[in-house]
Amino acid sequence: MNAYESVLQRSKEIALYGSAASVLSWDQETYMPAKAGAYRAEQLGQFAGLTHRLATSTEVGDWIKACEDSLPPCADEEESALRAANVREWRRDYDRATKLSSRLVEDLAKTTSLAREAWAKARLESDFSAFEPWLDKILGLVREQAEGWGYSTCAYDALLEGYEPGARAAELAPVFADLQKELTPLLPQLQKITETVDPVRLEGNYSIAEQQKLNALVAQAMGFDFEAGRIDTTTHPFCTEMGPKDCRLTTRYNEKDFTSSLFGVMHEAGHGLYTQGLPPEQFGTPMGTYLSLGIHESQSRLWENQVGRSLAFWQHWYPRVQKQFPNLAGLSLEEFWIIVNRVKATHIRVEADEATYNLHIILRFEMEQRLVSGELAVADLPKAWNTRFEELFQIPVPDDARGCLQDTHWALGLIGYFPTYTLGTLNAAQLFNAALKQVPGLESELQQANYTRLLDWLREKIHRHGRRYSPTELITQATGESTRATYFMDYLNAKYRI
Amino acid sequence: MNAYESVLQRSKEIALYGSAASVLSWDQETYMPAKAGAYRAEQLGQFAGLTHRLATSTEVGDWIKACEDSLPPCADEEESALRAANVREWRRDYDRATKLSSRLVEDLAKTTSLAREAWAKARLESDFSAFEPWLDKILGLVREQAEGWGYSTCAYDALLEGYEPGARAAELAPVFADLQKELTPLLPQLQKITETVDPVRLEGNYSIAEQQKLNALVAQAMGFDFEAGRIDTTTHPFCTEMGPKDCRLTTRYNEKDFTSSLFGVMHEAGHGLYTQGLPPEQFGTPMGTYLSLGIHESQSRLWENQVGRSLAFWQHWYPRVQKQFPNLAGLSLEEFWIIVNRVKATHIRVEADEATYNLHIILRFEMEQRLVSGELAVADLPKAWNTRFEELFQIPVPDDARGCLQDTHWALGLIGYFPTYTLGTLNAAQLFNAALKQVPGLESELQQANYTRLLDWLREKIHRHGRRYSPTELITQATGESTRATYFMDYLNAKYRI
Repeated sequence: MNAYESVLQRSKEIALYGSAASVLSWDQETYMPAKAGAYRAEQLGQFAGLTHRLATSTEVGDWIKACEDSLPPCADEEESALRAANVREWRRDYDRATKLSSRLVEDLAKTTSLAREAWAKARLESDFSAFEPWLDKILGLVREQAEGWGYSTCAYDALLEGYEPGARAAELAPVFADLQKELTPLLPQLQKITETVDPVRLEGNYSIAEQQKLNALVAQAMGFDFEAGRIDTTTHPFCTEMGPKDCRLTTRYNEKDFTSSLFGVMHEAGHGLYTQGLPPEQFGTPMGTYLSLGIHESQSRLWENQVGRSLAFWQHWYPRVQKQFPNLAGLSLEEFWIIVNRVKATHIRVEADEATYNLHIILRFEMEQRLVSGELAVADLPKAWNTRFEELFQIPVPDDARGCLQDTHWALGLIGYFPTYTLGTLNAAQLFNAALKQVPGLESELQQANYTRLLDWLREKIHRHGRRYSPTELITQATGESTRATYFMDYLNAKYRI
Repeated sequence: MNAYESVLQRSKEIALYGSAASVLSWDQETYMPAKAGAYRAEQLGQFAGLTHRLATSTEVGDWIKACEDSLPPCADEEESALRAANVREWRRDYDRATKLSSRLVEDLAKTTSLAREAWAKARLESDFSAFEPWLDKILGLVREQAEGWGYSTCAYDALLEGYEPGARAAELAPVFADLQKELTPLLPQLQKITETVDPVRLEGNYSIAEQQKLNALVAQAMGFDFEAGRIDTTTHPFCTEMGPKDCRLTTRYNEKDFTSSLFGVMHEAGHGLYTQGLPPEQFGTPMGTYLSLGIHESQSRLWENQVGRSLAFWQHWYPRVQKQFPNLAGLSLEEFWIIVNRVKATHIRVEADEATYNLHIILRFEMEQRLVSGELAVADLPKAWNTRFEELFQIPVPDDARGCLQDTHWALGLIGYFPTYTLGTLNAAQLFNAALKQVPGLESELQQANYTRLLDWLREKIHRHGRRYSPTELITQATGESTRATYFMDYLNAKYRI
């Protein structure tokens, strides 16, 4: 076996254990009985330690070095390019992984598994003090991570890099500030336009079984393959990959409002389509792996918002939905469309509209930078959160469950993750704009609920490439320029006809 | 770390990976999407190889040898006895495991994972030819296993030993022959007594949701802890352990007859109570592991039959069930009891009554011995099965789905497993008889649906001991004598008042 084949084999072995751990995590969120939590944490800790050891053993470094010195010749030019890209990404991963001790990796996995349980209970009881020691412990551990990885400007950058290769807080901050500057004056206008219809008129008694039928139909129309995936129920929706043909989505249900789970499913199915579009034969290697969270999120946002909240989408689906839910008989298409596109300050990020959503991200981006730097003590988080929230949204925070306890991310050790949501928003608008320009007739196909060529375009431009190019290269190749806020602002303005 | 602590640590590490593989297998049966099968097979193969390597490495042999030579002193006498028993069982497992190559273990895991899918399809289409090559391959592999393990009389014994330590085909055969001899003349009488009520009168439209409510209530009354376990739906019901506080049962539903899933759940919950009664602090060691399938099955049978099919049980539960399912209003308690205790030749083992059930086992016991010895070619199995079935049951086999394709066991490589079901039946009757004799007032408690002291007795006599004693020792300690058929025959005679 040559050096390339050795790394390849190891890479696939790690993916095999990693995907088994994904099944354990998915099960923990969906079906695992309560008392099994402690042992599951032990298992996940051991798996994290095992994959870390497999990824960081010195022979892996030697093999990668040997590949860099001379990659074994390969007749096919495309195959050679893919191998070179794999080697480049293996190097990146190896350098990042070898800087952390197994002890730290296992400690994080175990702590976050237990912290997740503590968080769920704390949120239920809106009791920040029950989660505080866990968050404090997690921050200590992620700071250790950041020190291990190294950084030039701030520890936060080292964390961010793990979710969005190449992104830096100091570069994101002005983009987010610009976005906030353009959004802030626009929001009252959008709120005024969309408050003309009372959202209570959408409220009804939507059985979970009927919601599930509709969600499955829409996900199928989008192109999600249910023979290689499924949808389950969890508190916090997610999409996870457990193998080359195994992608699991989750959602949660609001029996008063079917659109909450529907848009949730469109969002997760957008992630799922990216996952299902990765080349299965490359599973377990960088070329078969998603590129970054900002790219992943561009796929979920595009399907949820650019597709799912468009008038064209509902022109097709609304008559069907009205048949399924007779209580909608008195609500016209246009009224319904305004309700699902209403812009209004809200406490819960995952329930926010696509415009104010970005303010939620800006808030979290600020808080987590200050928590990591130590400028903000964990004990002071609720107060800091509530103060800044009120500045941004002009409404007070009633309790921590609807404040700093609402998201699962920090409990899972995912710090530096939030900004990728807004990066995704910007990328989504930019990609959708490019698809409409590049694919003749796409607009009318979408009006007929035919999503095949949109999906084909995304598969061609984004999905099939895995980690071959950088996020910036990929967006530039697909749209002609790197990520900008313009397309998102244009999209909002056009949508509400301002 | 001394030798004992080294084996202990290894034993727990193996249990950790083994229980992760249990999650993967459970998921494969319950929720995994269809296309994920091939990769899941690869994963399970790799896990089987990993745990086999961990269990069979030479240092483990050295540690066990060192423990045998001198077990580290321990102040507590009970603790010393437990340790000595652990060492004895580690030796047994090690000797059994080191005789097989990793290649064979991985090949079996991979083959059976794929064979399971082939079997499911073959059964659906009643197409034995689609399963034939898989069964042939599996037989080749289990014969290799038997040769590896070694045996004195026949290869089948080496397989049987894996499920029921100490059992031998030549010793079981006369017991089973006797049982058949006593059962055969009794069956027409039981059939005559129980055919007085037409079972069609039980048929109704029992929604799955309502069945699930009842099943959960009964399992809870039995003492099954739903915070450390759950019930899901699969084609073939089973009970599996995924950790010290994580026991999963499955069942299947017949919307025309709620008793099918209810007795299925009582059966699996019987297994589950054994699992939940093993000492959690010993998880991953022989003292925290079930003893044998014949003992496991005694627990499921006892709850399903001795408890669940008794008149006393239904005197309590039937009024409740009648309220839940109003179509039962016209069916009296006694009529209902006769229907759920009807004796009648049927094709499907898992639908058989507790009396004829044993003939199903005798048939499989005969067939698998002949398949393993090679006396019966796989291609000739359907014919041999059908001929012998008709001799035993006096009814013809309509198709292979209701014949030799009905069980999942062989597809999973579980050959030598079936006889433990009838061993379980005999043990169940013998244990229940002993409990009634030893626990004053138990009979009247059971009439009041109070199962606490029965469960306590089983926990005390069976569950808590893990693999400390042999099956024969355990049954003798609990009941005063080793396993006999008498108590089961007495039970049948008393039940039907013959």
